[in-house]
Amino acid sequence: MKRTVTIIGSGMMGSALAYPAFENGHEVRLVGTPLDREIIDECRRSNKHPKFEIAFPEGVKYYQFEEWREAVEGADFVIGGVSSFGVDWFLEEVLAHLDPKMPVLSVTKGLINLPDGTLISYPAYWQTELQKRGIEREVCAIGGPCTSYELVYHDQTEVAFCGKDTATLKMMKETMSTSYYHISLTNDVIGLESAVALKNAYALGVAMTIGLVNRENGENAGLHYNSQAGAFYQATKEMSRLLKIQGASEDSTYIGIGDLYVTVYGGRTRKIGILLGEGKSYEEAMDILAGVTLESLVVARRVAKAIYRKAELGMLDLADFPLMVHANDVLDNGKDAQLPWEAFTFDNTK
Amino acid sequence: MKRTVTIIGSGMMGSALAYPAFENGHEVRLVGTPLDREIIDECRRSNKHPKFEIAFPEGVKYYQFEEWREAVEGADFVIGGVSSFGVDWFLEEVLAHLDPKMPVLSVTKGLINLPDGTLISYPAYWQTELQKRGIEREVCAIGGPCTSYELVYHDQTEVAFCGKDTATLKMMKETMSTSYYHISLTNDVIGLESAVALKNAYALGVAMTIGLVNRENGENAGLHYNSQAGAFYQATKEMSRLLKIQGASEDSTYIGIGDLYVTVYGGRTRKIGILLGEGKSYEEAMDILAGVTLESLVVARRVAKAIYRKAELGMLDLADFPLMVHANDVLDNGKDAQLPWEAFTFDNTK
Repeated sequence: MKRTVTIIGSGMMGSALAYPAFENGHEVRLVGTPLDREIIDECRRSNKHPKFEIAFPEGVKYYQFEEWREAVEGADFVIGGVSSFGVDWFLEEVLAHLDPKMPVLSVTKGLINLPDGTLISYPAYWQTELQKRGIEREVCAIGGPCTSYELVYHDQTEVAFCGKDTATLKMMKETMSTSYYHISLTNDVIGLESAVALKNAYALGVAMTIGLVNRENGENAGLHYNSQAGAFYQATKEMSRLLKIQGASEDSTYIGIGDLYVTVYGGRTRKIGILLGEGKSYEEAMDILAGVTLESLVVARRVAKAIYRKAELGMLDLADFPLMVHANDVLDNGKDAQLPWEAFTFDNTK
Repeated sequence: MKRTVTIIGSGMMGSALAYPAFENGHEVRLVGTPLDREIIDECRRSNKHPKFEIAFPEGVKYYQFEEWREAVEGADFVIGGVSSFGVDWFLEEVLAHLDPKMPVLSVTKGLINLPDGTLISYPAYWQTELQKRGIEREVCAIGGPCTSYELVYHDQTEVAFCGKDTATLKMMKETMSTSYYHISLTNDVIGLESAVALKNAYALGVAMTIGLVNRENGENAGLHYNSQAGAFYQATKEMSRLLKIQGASEDSTYIGIGDLYVTVYGGRTRKIGILLGEGKSYEEAMDILAGVTLESLVVARRVAKAIYRKAELGMLDLADFPLMVHANDVLDNGKDAQLPWEAFTFDNTK
């Protein structure tokens, strides 16, 4: 059955999803946000996203944001491909005007921290805000270890789609599943979204150990993985604990651990972690990375803030989360990156 | 308090433990097995283990196996540093003759599979065999992400010591803890030993994805981590499931996941996994690796055998362990390494 998928937001992740959808024989319409004007121009010119090495399959349709209503006309669902900086924009400019019956699948990773320490997912945030306007809408979301450029390469990828409406999720999976894009389904929205958001702070913590090894042994010191593995062990423990508090299902936790793994290896979170580990201050590290604003750091700080608030409220003990506290102290309080290793040991002898 | 630590088995892991023990001010006596004769000769000549780049601290004492009784005289505890091929040798030649009151800490990683699908730890195996001879002895053991050469480099390392006697464990931790060797303690022997044994098959499964990427994109294809992360997610899920069946504590599971992480990155398990992923047969891969016998593969096969037996007995469903089954099929049944990715997805929607 041929469907129509409209992707709004032509950043890397949103755009990468055009490949599996189109290759499955569906119509794909890629809509840029007002920040994506040049990307859409370039796609129209060359059928290639400026950030990808591989061209789009011939037949993907491109729209500037002014044309978004036309692009969603007759679509089976909309993929929201904005970054976490575009969450409110997507609410105001798209969701508030979209037929509430049009299913939406969001790739935006992150959480919002409420003053009481509660962490809510973007789908829950959008739902609440829309309800205030009398609009009832569900939003589904994608989590899991997937970097966009690898999806474009058709690398084997495991993700999960979450949402409250199972029939919608199944329709989305049927549309998007390929021989390389493998989709689990869950109704555990807050669990999955928490799992893939939490990994940001922890990826930073694990990546710091790489920089610490460089500081100790020079950059070409060969294999040094004990400390990475020690931090990964602790990250797994703390993520599992936090996800239990969030009421996450175990499957969502495993997806989060896979996402942690891929984040340690790719991208800018790794780079800043290494720089901090090498002894650079946060400001120096940001200078070296040319002042790019890191979405992952925004999420890491929000999660840390919520955890500190939960601790104030007596809902958890910060002593159980030494790696989260450490990553936050290095990021924002000028602490040296050397990890509090002994705090990661346990004694559960009787 | 100055103690005396006698290490029997001068392979890399046993020998590496000389560093933290000696640096803490203790007397360290390193005893070679009959296979280690040249290592001990070399240590006596140069104070350096032939496999390590860094010399032993000045003052470590070396013994050939004939002198082992002298070497354990007055020791506070013995570290058993044999490989899993030396388990029976260690039983016959050392444990059967050692004062049952002399504490023993084993670094040998592995499990023994009984005909009914039960997996028992080496400490439990030794205990049972010694009981048949009227000897009552406990053996403590070490698990966790630690490669020996990195310990020699004083890299930050997190491990766990397990055993039934808490006072003994605490004495061992006090003796061995350093600013870089961080020790958790647990009475969960079977859980910890299972966790660090299970990681062998799963490290093979994750490493195969690296070879598969090479097969698809060439060896210098740059960053390709989605598939590694997808396999790591599945490995975490299956290990957690199997460890629940083994009655492991959650902390032991986290240590096992850290150990999986380090095993994917270092050593020969990674190498054979990559070769299998690239499309080599098991025999071709072993030829390339010059016919070395891989301890980790022995353990992987034993664990797989036990799991198949448990499935026959209706204690578990093999469909819940597609990565374990796959790794075993590639290893022993000539199956192509391409992973059964869709089998890794879950659907827990209502």
